[in-house]
Amino acid sequence: MKQFLSAQDVQDIPSLIQSALEYKANPWKDEMLGKHKKLGCLFMNPSMRTRLSTQVAAQQLGMETVIFNVGHEGWALEFEDGATMNGTNVEHVKDAAPILGHYFDILAVRTFPGLKDRSADYSEHIIHQFIHYAGIPVISLESATLHPLQSLADLITVHEAIAQHTLASKPKIVLTWAPHVKPLPQCVANSFAQWVNAWGAADFVITHPKGYELEPSFTNGATISHDQDAALKDADFIYVKNWSAYEDYGTMPGHGGEWMLNNKKIEQSNNGKVMHCLPVRRNVELSDEILDSSNSLVTKQAGNRVWAAQAVIASMLKASNK
Amino acid sequence: MKQFLSAQDVQDIPSLIQSALEYKANPWKDEMLGKHKKLGCLFMNPSMRTRLSTQVAAQQLGMETVIFNVGHEGWALEFEDGATMNGTNVEHVKDAAPILGHYFDILAVRTFPGLKDRSADYSEHIIHQFIHYAGIPVISLESATLHPLQSLADLITVHEAIAQHTLASKPKIVLTWAPHVKPLPQCVANSFAQWVNAWGAADFVITHPKGYELEPSFTNGATISHDQDAALKDADFIYVKNWSAYEDYGTMPGHGGEWMLNNKKIEQSNNGKVMHCLPVRRNVELSDEILDSSNSLVTKQAGNRVWAAQAVIASMLKASNK
Amino acid sequence: MKQFLSAQDVQDIPSLIQSALEYKANPWKDEMLGKHKKLGCLFMNPSMRTRLSTQVAAQQLGMETVIFNVGHEGWALEFEDGATMNGTNVEHVKDAAPILGHYFDILAVRTFPGLKDRSADYSEHIIHQFIHYAGIPVISLESATLHPLQSLADLITVHEAIAQHTLASKPKIVLTWAPHVKPLPQCVANSFAQWVNAWGAADFVITHPKGYELEPSFTNGATISHDQDAALKDADFIYVKNWSAYEDYGTMPGHGGEWMLNNKKIEQSNNGKVMHCLPVRRNVELSDEILDSSNSLVTKQAGNRVWAAQAVIASMLKASNK
Repeated sequence: MKQFLSAQDVQDIPSLIQSALEYKANPWKDEMLGKHKKLGCLFMNPSMRTRLSTQVAAQQLGMETVIFNVGHEGWALEFEDGATMNGTNVEHVKDAAPILGHYFDILAVRTFPGLKDRSADYSEHIIHQFIHYAGIPVISLESATLHPLQSLADLITVHEAIAQHTLASKPKIVLTWAPHVKPLPQCVANSFAQWVNAWGAADFVITHPKGYELEPSFTNGATISHDQDAALKDADFIYVKNWSAYEDYGTMPGHGGEWMLNNKKIEQSNNGKVMHCLPVRRNVELSDEILDSSNSLVTKQAGNRVWAAQAVIASMLKASNK
Repeated sequence: MKQFLSAQDVQDIPSLIQSALEYKANPWKDEMLGKHKKLGCLFMNPSMRTRLSTQVAAQQLGMETVIFNVGHEGWALEFEDGATMNGTNVEHVKDAAPILGHYFDILAVRTFPGLKDRSADYSEHIIHQFIHYAGIPVISLESATLHPLQSLADLITVHEAIAQHTLASKPKIVLTWAPHVKPLPQCVANSFAQWVNAWGAADFVITHPKGYELEPSFTNGATISHDQDAALKDADFIYVKNWSAYEDYGTMPGHGGEWMLNNKKIEQSNNGKVMHCLPVRRNVELSDEILDSSNSLVTKQAGNRVWAAQAVIASMLKASNK
Repeated sequence: MKQFLSAQDVQDIPSLIQSALEYKANPWKDEMLGKHKKLGCLFMNPSMRTRLSTQVAAQQLGMETVIFNVGHEGWALEFEDGATMNGTNVEHVKDAAPILGHYFDILAVRTFPGLKDRSADYSEHIIHQFIHYAGIPVISLESATLHPLQSLADLITVHEAIAQHTLASKPKIVLTWAPHVKPLPQCVANSFAQWVNAWGAADFVITHPKGYELEPSFTNGATISHDQDAALKDADFIYVKNWSAYEDYGTMPGHGGEWMLNNKKIEQSNNGKVMHCLPVRRNVELSDEILDSSNSLVTKQAGNRVWAAQAVIASMLKASNK
């Protein structure tokens, strides 16, 4: 694997899940694989699970990790080609990225969308610039439109729950929009939809209020519904997530009705396991009663972030050793 | 040891001091003890000595350390049970802490009091929430009301000075309030009082202006005096520290008279060794002449922070290996 | 080597360059040299290349590295002797530095000039205070007036280019001032001048507008010219850098004419290789066309920062092992 930005970068999702579960069973089995290899992690935005799980994963592979908080420990980057840099951006990615390629063996980058210019965000210009100019394998720690390490961890969690609860091998998975206090990126929802569709082993339904349609290339393959109650019926897995509008980009159209998930809402599900990528706004997106119940998988998902990252990094290290 | 928040978590203070001194003599003697173990350090507040000494101590035990500056590299946490999270706090400790318990073997947390709501601060709600939800051993890197790694380092320093200067085995230790430019927590004073009382091997006097009484459960066992000059007479150790009022919580009542320690003030002491946890406001809390004299133990105290942390972490690692 | 602040701290520049090139050929050849040794890196200012390359270099020598962002993870330091510390500075370097000397084996410090008080900046008071009070070897990661790791990397790059392009063994090196949007320190220019002069193996010309004269003790030995076009004629190496005025300290006197380097400007050079320390303001200091051409050495320079740092740290470790 030369880059990990999307489900499309993965040839065989089930075998990547399998690799992650092997690391979960035996975290240090490849502790010499990353010897003398260096992972550079660039954070252009805040992060907790991604930041910590990636470091832990790299340590377990014997890699050295260097963390860099761009614009905080360093300075703001310019991404516009041909810019006359007389403003506040101090360095061009054209100059910064090749150096990171000199210093590190793998580069991991976290960046968010601006949520103002849809075509700019959906071009994934920023992370592609890093890939283009760094010249080393790049891992997305969340980009403008996708969050692939989260989605891989999500599928690992689904896979485990199917085995543990002897659920149908083709479960019903529902991605449901949830309310929030401010406009959020579509990344997690896009990415989850993309991975579930690529995985192909689920009956997949997406439910959201009108105006919150996601970009079709990610959702193609899923059933879309504006009726949350109908969507949740018989669900085995319920993935809860807020996102802002893709059409009227970055806005929060009125959603009408009750969309926050609570116990009453999931009564008609098939004892549905509830998922969320975290951080979650309690009693806004999801009720305490669900999050604190045994049906919640959120801590398991977050725990699985380590194994997802470890499988991806290991795959890159193995490819580069060939 | 499952938690280290207070002197009450330590069964045998002299043997913990002894363990620290053994690491001081031979820093790397247990460098395999922490192999494959991970220490997560969460800083909700600034820190220098604690931050650096904890990392050095963990390295010397062969542990991997991951640093996380909450609200700075990540985001603000919510600690209120049942909160409807529609404000500025992005994640509940209920959701964050269990994940830290998945990622790390030991969690170390730094948090400060708000100095507005005494009962909230003195409930130690924040660090107890981490303990409750993380499910792994927790070390306080200073909490709302106590600073146990500092106090352990202080006692190590006293222990060494007694041996080096052949002082009385039951020395006179005076904790004196000092002026400051802004209201500070009571943590260091509470904690020093608690540890000296628990240690029990000193004649212990606390002196401060009226209005600066500390919480009695920490000071019980000490003689309290409002006459600094009388208190300092014959003192072997003089611990200088500012704190804000406990009674009229978080305020700075007028203190009258001269409370800044200088050479004249300590003339009647028994060639008293002067201590301070640092950072110190020179010529506000303490004069340059004292800090720059051979009577000052402040650098030794700070140096001993490494060995205090190493003894505590090692004790937790050994307990978890059983 | 006990300190690395300046070319004057280096006995034999060619042999230090040689040592760096040996690490470049074999990064891990001394991976046991730093075992059980700790490098503390204090950043009082932002940094990217210096921060990352120093960590990578230390890792390759087997050292443990601890990063501390002063005033960001910690608090503001006081450097004035005898200060009554009733302002915003929380800790005196007199108290902080000795502790760093306890925790680490080598201390690396990054600090910038204030650009307001020339004699204060040029006294290098801050880094000298660290040296004085820390009591361990100190490496400058850029100080108020010099940037020695950058200059060493620059000479390594020149050395490589001479060999690769079979240039004259005594090349013509031109340091040219460039425009910028805000007043910058003189560090990189001072330091490059100092190192090229100390190295002695070049025909060295400095060109800048009137009013931008550098401090003579650094530039003595170079030809100074206000005619950029004449200076660039037959140049083998062209080092481009902005700096603010030394005379009318910290200001940006009007420079008249065109000083931004572009292809037309370097037509009369000897196919001059273009250098810059980065970060660079594209199309303000230098045109895209130059930076994106094969004549640009900027990425090589930045890559060589690792080997410069590794040679310096190794030299200190070897000295301390004697």
